[in-house]
Amino acid sequence: MRSPIKHCRNCGTSVVYRLPDDGDTRERAICPACATIHYENPLNVVGTLPYFGDRVLLCRRNIEPRWGKWTLPAGFMELGETAAQGAARETVEEAGAHFEMEELLSVLSVPRVGQVHLFWRARLLSDRFDPGPETIEARLFSEQDIPWDEIAFRTVRETLLRFFDDRRRGLQAVHTLDID
Amino acid sequence: MRSPIKHCRNCGTSVVYRLPDDGDTRERAICPACATIHYENPLNVVGTLPYFGDRVLLCRRNIEPRWGKWTLPAGFMELGETAAQGAARETVEEAGAHFEMEELLSVLSVPRVGQVHLFWRARLLSDRFDPGPETIEARLFSEQDIPWDEIAFRTVRETLLRFFDDRRRGLQAVHTLDID
Repeated sequence: MRSPIKHCRNCGTSVVYRLPDDGDTRERAICPACATIHYENPLNVVGTLPYFGDRVLLCRRNIEPRWGKWTLPAGFMELGETAAQGAARETVEEAGAHFEMEELLSVLSVPRVGQVHLFWRARLLSDRFDPGPETIEARLFSEQDIPWDEIAFRTVRETLLRFFDDRRRGLQAVHTLDID
Repeated sequence: MRSPIKHCRNCGTSVVYRLPDDGDTRERAICPACATIHYENPLNVVGTLPYFGDRVLLCRRNIEPRWGKWTLPAGFMELGETAAQGAARETVEEAGAHFEMEELLSVLSVPRVGQVHLFWRARLLSDRFDPGPETIEARLFSEQDIPWDEIAFRTVRETLLRFFDDRRRGLQAVHTLDID
């Protein structure tokens, strides 16, 4: 999924993948000139499940991958923000929504792509949206109208399913899940 | 905390920090030769709170930072593993513990250092440990014996406090917290 590191970020020399000398058990990209070890680690995708009464907000993607498919507002967490701040930021950027952040809803590991997805419940204060350039359309759906076959990502699908299931049971849990 | 990127990982050319042309609102390290954009994102630290009856396992650090201080077994999540698998791996590596993973216990954002820490409850199956090279000593502590002034990290301290508080209340929650 990610392209291998070819050059040292510190000095530009070509790196070699090998075991470091510090007892580490994984091969890393190591610079033979300045000895910098380049670690590669999973990324966090943070987002929200915004709801308005019994309807939830979905955004139709205007970007690849999955152009034209429906998703929850989410994106890569940035340096300098908390996970919840990142989730709120993405919700503003992608949907132009007005909302109040609530509790953590799901934590999903996706080891195949080296990602962890974290979603928060967000209570919408308005049903008017102002989608950003990455969104074709932002719209509220009741559970029976959700385009389940047109959902962009499994993490979004699983998060939506658990949100509606919680509602039926009258509880609010944090759901942890691993996606193959 | 992290050193800035100086050279392109793809071709080795010196990068410049500037706004990308794709509408991104953050400066990124961009290669003027091959146009690679280098994103820098938060890292996940994953670990466990291993317990045996009413005692919890702490490890005394044999590495910097915080050499000699007490911590829960935890470390950077790696590519190819789920967050819970990473937490279990660190618990084996640092403490040589035998345990069963249980539920997610805490999710703590630490924006100052660009990290998210995730801890799981782990039920110890034995009170015998086999600490790895990063650990001076692995030992069980009852709540009143925990060396609170010698705990290595605030995320560990907060996770321990919430674990014992949950026990007193007879519940198991997932705790989300932001650390300044």
